[in-house]
Amino acid sequence: MPQIRQNLATREWVVIATERAKRPYDFKASDKKKVTLPEYSEKCPFCPGNESALAPVETHSIRDKSGKWRVRSIPNKFSALSTDGMPEFIQNGIYRWINGVGIHDVIIETPLHNTCMALFPVEQIVDVLSIYKARYLMALADDRIELVIIFKNHGESAGTSIEHPHSQMIAMPIVPSHIRNRISEAMSYFDDHRECVYCKMIKEEITSGERIINETNNFVCFIPYAALSPFHIWLFPKKHMPSFPMLDDVFLLELATVMKDVLSRLYFGLNDPDYNFVVMSLPGTLRENKFFHWYISFVPRVSKAAGFELGSGMFINTGLPEESAKFLREVKGS
Amino acid sequence: MPQIRQNLATREWVVIATERAKRPYDFKASDKKKVTLPEYSEKCPFCPGNESALAPVETHSIRDKSGKWRVRSIPNKFSALSTDGMPEFIQNGIYRWINGVGIHDVIIETPLHNTCMALFPVEQIVDVLSIYKARYLMALADDRIELVIIFKNHGESAGTSIEHPHSQMIAMPIVPSHIRNRISEAMSYFDDHRECVYCKMIKEEITSGERIINETNNFVCFIPYAALSPFHIWLFPKKHMPSFPMLDDVFLLELATVMKDVLSRLYFGLNDPDYNFVVMSLPGTLRENKFFHWYISFVPRVSKAAGFELGSGMFINTGLPEESAKFLREVKGS
Repeated sequence: MPQIRQNLATREWVVIATERAKRPYDFKASDKKKVTLPEYSEKCPFCPGNESALAPVETHSIRDKSGKWRVRSIPNKFSALSTDGMPEFIQNGIYRWINGVGIHDVIIETPLHNTCMALFPVEQIVDVLSIYKARYLMALADDRIELVIIFKNHGESAGTSIEHPHSQMIAMPIVPSHIRNRISEAMSYFDDHRECVYCKMIKEEITSGERIINETNNFVCFIPYAALSPFHIWLFPKKHMPSFPMLDDVFLLELATVMKDVLSRLYFGLNDPDYNFVVMSLPGTLRENKFFHWYISFVPRVSKAAGFELGSGMFINTGLPEESAKFLREVKGS
Repeated sequence: MPQIRQNLATREWVVIATERAKRPYDFKASDKKKVTLPEYSEKCPFCPGNESALAPVETHSIRDKSGKWRVRSIPNKFSALSTDGMPEFIQNGIYRWINGVGIHDVIIETPLHNTCMALFPVEQIVDVLSIYKARYLMALADDRIELVIIFKNHGESAGTSIEHPHSQMIAMPIVPSHIRNRISEAMSYFDDHRECVYCKMIKEEITSGERIINETNNFVCFIPYAALSPFHIWLFPKKHMPSFPMLDDVFLLELATVMKDVLSRLYFGLNDPDYNFVVMSLPGTLRENKFFHWYISFVPRVSKAAGFELGSGMFINTGLPEESAKFLREVKGS
């Protein structure tokens, strides 16, 4: 019998389709996609040496003693938003729109063209996280910004055509309804229980252990009870904290270690699948609140959303979360 | 300057990314994908002659005088839900789940393996719509069912690997939050304006005309002001009607004509792109209400959702709705 499971925090339902379930190893990416890439590509706008011609403006960088950059951020050449102007609210007949002002950065994660985050030295991931934090804080200081989304698209089916490892930050002048709904659900749970719903889930998952991928002193990583897709993974700081940049720098190394561990389990266990990750963090303010808890959501692209998902907003997950978690626990991580 | 537009009915925001906008013809599918298929495939479970071995049980069919089926529905062999049992609500520690009971049908739209709905004779589409309606009504008569989703996945990037033209119906024992939010927004609009928000949009679109694809006496088809993606299309009955099966049979031919027109504009204008469509219809009840209005949403898969969309629930649309609509109006339709 299939189960329709509810996510405690988002109240979204997911069909866990046991009748059509696959085994975890059935989701492995095929070998065909593997292409050997060069360490440097002369046409790549993100490779060192091409900066002045192809990516002249830099918003932030971390450099070694010789002055060479290790990680840098630049404005997205095909920016979805414009950094100029104010977010004016325009009523246009019955419709409304706001000027698309905001910030759209690309974070170039490494000088090497042909590697990926799962294979980075952990210090490289610390550098990437440092830039995420610096750019997030910079965006928050901009009064026009209401929401900051940091995300990564790895591989073509995850929405990128650029091979060179990179992530992106989009800072927006509005809060979309999806995020408002998340906040509203978390507030309702807090009203009813005087506890952060994410803190509650974290405790439950650590106690049960059956969906855990890994756990350190300050972080925990698991497949949610109502995961939207096979290998959908949530990574949380254990301490209650609504916003990602509230994380003290002393914890970046530990977070980087957990991220590398998760990504390398996916890399080796599922043969380098395409994936997205996104930092889910309270919009707009650093002010402490008791109901929301930031996290990183990883979504390997091992299944496709189709008409049913478009129409219902629900997902059909053909992997059992407990089995997927066990599979990943048994893969050798970082 | 990009625009962040709000959909009046759903209150969702969309970035219309004018800076990275493409011209409508840039979204044409490449020619490479074209493969010549046979009219009959012996391994296809949907082809005539293979029924008894590969798809024995039939839930409904429309047949010609000689008894041959023209359209038939069968249970999905890889059903996401089980037809047996009752939807029991189970509290499992802090989590909850419901037995996955429901109905998951495949509607085989034609005996021919190698055609597609855009090329069907219009009478064939009438037959398909008749089966949609019959199966929807059958599902509504089942007391366990709260929501019926009818949808079609055309092509691999739209989530299907089966070539033979088919659609699906999933009838579920719960209403997902995505649909609850839609209902709630429509009710709020009605409270504030004593008018169905969709009726309001329909009037506005007909008056302005700039996003219209086509219009008949009883139906209208346009690209929404805040379309989620290029060529995202909404098709409405003009008369207020919350639920698809309330549509009288006498209108099925006119609806089929409009669907064929839209699909053939996509087929010829964009070179047979992969697409989904879904019938958005009030869940559960046929009772008249004044705030919701059923429609069909078409989503050609000409762009990819990536990390930003996963994290924010928002979309970045690189096509200007007014330009996309103009392009489709100029394509020769059915």
